[in-house]
Amino acid sequence: MIPEPRADGLSPAAYRVVGRALPRFDVADKVRGATQYAADWQMPGMLVGRILRSIYPCARIRRLDVARARALPGVAVVLTARDLPRSGVEEDPTGAGLLRFTTPILADGVVRYQGEPVAIVAAASDASARAALAAIEVEYEPLPGVHDAEAAARRGAERVHEGRDNVFVHWKLRRGDVETGFRGAAAVVERTYRTQRVDHAYLEPEAGVAWVDADGVITVRASSQVIEHFRALAEILGLPHNRVRVIAPFLGGGFGGKEDMTVEPYVAALAWATGRPVRMVWGRDESLLARPKRHAFVMRYKTGAARDGSLLAQEISLLADAGPYPLLSPRVLFAALVVGCGPYRVPHVRIDARAVFTNNVPASAMRGFGAMQMTFAYEAQMDLIAHALGMPPAAIRERNFLRKGDRLPTGEAAGTYVALPELLRRAQDALGERSRPSGPTARVGRGIACNMQPYGRTVWFQDRASAWLGLEADGSLVIRAGVPDLGGGQAASLAQIAAEVLGVSVERIRVHVGDSALTPLAGGTFATRQLYMSGNAALRCARELRAEIAPVAAALLEAAEADLEFADDHVGVAGAPDRRVSLARVVAECSRRGVPVSRLSAFQGERSAPPDLDTGQGRTFPDYTYGCHAAEVEVDTETGETRLLKYAACHDVGRAINPQSVAGQIQGGAAMGIGQALGEEIALEAGVNLTTLFANYLMPTAPDLPDIQAIVLESGEGRGPFGARGIGEPPTGPPLATIAAAVADATGVRPLELPITPERVFRALAGRAGTKEGR
Amino acid sequence: MIPEPRADGLSPAAYRVVGRALPRFDVADKVRGATQYAADWQMPGMLVGRILRSIYPCARIRRLDVARARALPGVAVVLTARDLPRSGVEEDPTGAGLLRFTTPILADGVVRYQGEPVAIVAAASDASARAALAAIEVEYEPLPGVHDAEAAARRGAERVHEGRDNVFVHWKLRRGDVETGFRGAAAVVERTYRTQRVDHAYLEPEAGVAWVDADGVITVRASSQVIEHFRALAEILGLPHNRVRVIAPFLGGGFGGKEDMTVEPYVAALAWATGRPVRMVWGRDESLLARPKRHAFVMRYKTGAARDGSLLAQEISLLADAGPYPLLSPRVLFAALVVGCGPYRVPHVRIDARAVFTNNVPASAMRGFGAMQMTFAYEAQMDLIAHALGMPPAAIRERNFLRKGDRLPTGEAAGTYVALPELLRRAQDALGERSRPSGPTARVGRGIACNMQPYGRTVWFQDRASAWLGLEADGSLVIRAGVPDLGGGQAASLAQIAAEVLGVSVERIRVHVGDSALTPLAGGTFATRQLYMSGNAALRCARELRAEIAPVAAALLEAAEADLEFADDHVGVAGAPDRRVSLARVVAECSRRGVPVSRLSAFQGERSAPPDLDTGQGRTFPDYTYGCHAAEVEVDTETGETRLLKYAACHDVGRAINPQSVAGQIQGGAAMGIGQALGEEIALEAGVNLTTLFANYLMPTAPDLPDIQAIVLESGEGRGPFGARGIGEPPTGPPLATIAAAVADATGVRPLELPITPERVFRALAGRAGTKEGR
Repeated sequence: MIPEPRADGLSPAAYRVVGRALPRFDVADKVRGATQYAADWQMPGMLVGRILRSIYPCARIRRLDVARARALPGVAVVLTARDLPRSGVEEDPTGAGLLRFTTPILADGVVRYQGEPVAIVAAASDASARAALAAIEVEYEPLPGVHDAEAAARRGAERVHEGRDNVFVHWKLRRGDVETGFRGAAAVVERTYRTQRVDHAYLEPEAGVAWVDADGVITVRASSQVIEHFRALAEILGLPHNRVRVIAPFLGGGFGGKEDMTVEPYVAALAWATGRPVRMVWGRDESLLARPKRHAFVMRYKTGAARDGSLLAQEISLLADAGPYPLLSPRVLFAALVVGCGPYRVPHVRIDARAVFTNNVPASAMRGFGAMQMTFAYEAQMDLIAHALGMPPAAIRERNFLRKGDRLPTGEAAGTYVALPELLRRAQDALGERSRPSGPTARVGRGIACNMQPYGRTVWFQDRASAWLGLEADGSLVIRAGVPDLGGGQAASLAQIAAEVLGVSVERIRVHVGDSALTPLAGGTFATRQLYMSGNAALRCARELRAEIAPVAAALLEAAEADLEFADDHVGVAGAPDRRVSLARVVAECSRRGVPVSRLSAFQGERSAPPDLDTGQGRTFPDYTYGCHAAEVEVDTETGETRLLKYAACHDVGRAINPQSVAGQIQGGAAMGIGQALGEEIALEAGVNLTTLFANYLMPTAPDLPDIQAIVLESGEGRGPFGARGIGEPPTGPPLATIAAAVADATGVRPLELPITPERVFRALAGRAGTKEGR
Repeated sequence: MIPEPRADGLSPAAYRVVGRALPRFDVADKVRGATQYAADWQMPGMLVGRILRSIYPCARIRRLDVARARALPGVAVVLTARDLPRSGVEEDPTGAGLLRFTTPILADGVVRYQGEPVAIVAAASDASARAALAAIEVEYEPLPGVHDAEAAARRGAERVHEGRDNVFVHWKLRRGDVETGFRGAAAVVERTYRTQRVDHAYLEPEAGVAWVDADGVITVRASSQVIEHFRALAEILGLPHNRVRVIAPFLGGGFGGKEDMTVEPYVAALAWATGRPVRMVWGRDESLLARPKRHAFVMRYKTGAARDGSLLAQEISLLADAGPYPLLSPRVLFAALVVGCGPYRVPHVRIDARAVFTNNVPASAMRGFGAMQMTFAYEAQMDLIAHALGMPPAAIRERNFLRKGDRLPTGEAAGTYVALPELLRRAQDALGERSRPSGPTARVGRGIACNMQPYGRTVWFQDRASAWLGLEADGSLVIRAGVPDLGGGQAASLAQIAAEVLGVSVERIRVHVGDSALTPLAGGTFATRQLYMSGNAALRCARELRAEIAPVAAALLEAAEADLEFADDHVGVAGAPDRRVSLARVVAECSRRGVPVSRLSAFQGERSAPPDLDTGQGRTFPDYTYGCHAAEVEVDTETGETRLLKYAACHDVGRAINPQSVAGQIQGGAAMGIGQALGEEIALEAGVNLTTLFANYLMPTAPDLPDIQAIVLESGEGRGPFGARGIGEPPTGPPLATIAAAVADATGVRPLELPITPERVFRALAGRAGTKEGR
């Protein structure tokens, strides 16, 4: 049974605003086409910025001559690595003191992936910018490079960076003794799974404008998930941090692809060099070619279970192809490590998670962030173990589900309610009656998959978010928080939270977000952290503000503070509908008494040291969101084509602040996972990208998808405001496993590699080659 | 002797940053022409806004037809009063519950001054905007109107507003019994003084751009002293307050002329109506014609003194011509009331201060704000009483100077040190040897004048200012405060204050000001309040931030908090130069410990009820700045021309945060007073403005002015940060009286009316008409 805790001292039934599917304030502008995205920003005298990119995946630059390009008419500046004060910022991408690395902004003497920026130009027109690129003389000495992650990880492999091991991060998790576990197992299953590189493929490409503002402040208005990049930009340009300001307007999607910098350093450097506004918009070809992708993983799993289905041991080896630079790979791999076993109790665990340098396109953050690929593997293992033991897939899961208080493989406890039994039941029930095959060669199959996905950053990053709320004289409210809104309703949720506490109607709240200089820093919009972190900051700020003004309202109403109700833009006395004053009146009285109605507050997340590096034991993520998906597919055994017939995605979101937004996140996340399961792939051949057009990068479109049923459970237990959990990333992982299971159910052949293309299914059915076992 | 208090517990000698003439951060851009003033802002698709103004000072509008104008090509919109949700905002300009008035944004059926806005247009080009104005059909019925303030104040005069008395504000001050005072007087002097209307005549004309931003927020970027006008704009447009945002970029001068709204309601309404950016820039002709001016005053003074020179009684009647709308006249008159007697002890006082409606150009705020005109009168009275008693002008002043703790005519005590004896001595000494006349018809004369000018708003406005300071990871600092910077260094002074407290070098501080949505509200830049109010807010915020991080620094240094020194971007241990850590290191440690390095603080000024309305007894202004000026003139008795030979302006500023800025304020303020004394006048004839060009509005230019010696005293006693007093307005008043006294000294004829034109001096010398007595 799902508990119904009285979060916030209120019964959820008493919420007035939280839990309502209110229209988001940002959508009207979007529907009308009035939203000014990054590329829409125009400034007088604006230059066009463009990047010269490497044509080779791996080469030495023998000569780079920009003299001719600089002399062309209309060309304001041409910059190479030598022209920047610093070529990059030395960082520790592990956050745990394990690695120092400087990722170059522009290639200096060598290119390490196809599309790597070599030089940048700013010119009066796009034509002159393109002419300048064409006039830059580069003499490359192409090198074979390293393109296979498994080969790159082998001892003695050619190195991507001289003097550095290709395996640049290796996380370890050790719990119990797997040998003991396997010795006692009635069934042991061992497989290797492979997931592919995919692209974020957001609607809005990478874009931004930079200009020099008052007092020489380099201001970058860019489509970015992380306005805190102002610090790195300042370091690159050799300026104090406060001389760079990053503004993130509303984004047309991010999904992790705008978590690392994209256009920011280039427009900033060009504006810094010219003193003029510079705009840069990447073409879809540039985006598909060179922007970091979701990691391709090789996952070797060995799982042992007792006769009754209880899991005894998991031995897991994870290898991710990072491309030539670390970027966020260490963190991606850490997430993979922590949830490698999925939402199940396993007493004996051994996991090694490694990322390796190659000369392929870089990989970094993408929605699901390492944890989602694992779902494909650990859920397949559950099915295969169940098959081996003759159990139904649901039964083996139910036997092993984590429960609140259970130890995770990291030794820490699952801190909140785990609703997996309910989620599993609801997801399965949602599919209804089994469909009948549409023809003689068609086979219908079903699959389920459960998952856990962290929300919030690993605790050793000591995450923090702040918000500044102020009531206006007319009782309207302004919220300021440095939250980039990616389109997921990050800004609107803050309004709903504050509305609940302060009683301001949502229409009378304005939210200003995404300005690193003028909105309080809230951290980037990634890691499914904004509702948790900034939601809590807004909640805390609203409560503190309410506590400030409550005595004033109580005095006006001659009532006890405890009896006050904040609702409908008024403060009233509970149970006495005629005793109320408007918020405007309360603000006026606060002003008379010198009581502040503006407040800056911060929410500090849990702070902890990194876990033990030899065993992975310790505190890792603040909490997890659990889910279960169910799918029904029809496979045409003649063509190998898989058609998705039904899909249900069920998650416990703790508390749905806005159920419509939650449903949107679930549907969008599931669609992203479905795309990865069935068709999307950034295909490389020796590092050369074969998929730089949407014509050959195959995303599902609306006709390819059934109605995705989003089923929302609210346990009331989560670490976000009002008991909410994050839901941005959790729905992306289960589709990989759900669809694979359904295909296996339909065909008797278990897909071990993504995407599940008609060709792969056809070959598997034809020869049963490579993917021998069924379910 | 000037005391040397240890403000802030530090000897002023220990200040590292305060008191240094540091270059202001905003000047480099200004010198390079890079500062983007309001009119410099360009947006794509921007329309041109223009105003149709009344050609008559007083008329009924019989017909107003905009149909033809609306139909013209390129015209986006034409608006009249009927098209606005509200024609204006009902306000109480007294702040004391004495008056409710709605000043129209656009004339509705009647025009009450020449240049009053009748309709506004937005069009694709300036040519089409002008064509639209020409196509608007207005049929006026001209009316005679009311143009003489004294006549307007008489019982039975024609009324400017039907049903409203022309005298719309009447402040009273009653202390002791003037009859008793005059009965004991050895000398009584009674005169009537007249000051003229003058213009602010800033370099930058009224300008602004408005556009509709995300979520329908009407954003106005305008040359304004008051970003808090967002509230009034919201009311006019029928929007919640948080749907309007006002941004004040750096201003090219304000002087009170941008304290009332200028272009703001027009660009806001045009952007609101069209959904497009609209830019409006007023021509100098519009500015001189129709923007509110400094009040013309008629001041009747009767002063009685004892044989030894001690003042016994003052009876004063003040009448100001407000034009047809109250605007800020009630507050201007109140300032005049409070300082009507000047910086002198007077036991028996009776003052009546009235403002009257006329159909002349409106009058409102201007630097000096009512208090400066009084200087002309009360200082002339001091000279005349001295003459009557056979005393030197300095001696009678010295006998009567206020001292700290003395009661003002309002009954409240002078709260801070009054340095007038020192100021007087320094100003007189500064002139050096007396010049010899340059020819046979030339006469040289000298004058002195002292003054007191309030800084800060009257206490019943319960003034408040806030600031948000945050340290960056590299130890640099960002200050955010909603302060419009008029060019007086308002923003830079905040940096210097914070630098002193936090030890961040000034070059590593960035100040963001003037945004009503994203910088904490600080109140308008007027009433010489920003250094006092926002300076204190920044000081408090910096101290609170220091208190937050000091324990962390102390722990890093293994030192006692009391021994810490914050300087040179480091925290060190007093007396141990090798024991120090960088601020960046301290910030990193704060971050590790979850200690906030960002803080929003407010400074609440004194709060008090309005004084007794029948007697003016009570608390009024927070404090005053005192000054003494000395001038030497040469008058050509043949032509009546006055040439200023030497000028010294001496003020006690409490503490000069930046001596160079202080000197700039003193020199600029004195120059403004000198212009009013000798030549400037907005001349009206039956309400028709004869001076709408700089060709006939005669401001002094550099060759007309001698080197103005700015002499700065620092008593350490003021209510601003580090004991500072405000200095924006105080230097404007004394020149009126100083120059008049010098002319009287040279010619034997006392000017009773400003400006002191050659014609007036010539006529006075010729006939000794009107201004009989000299000294």
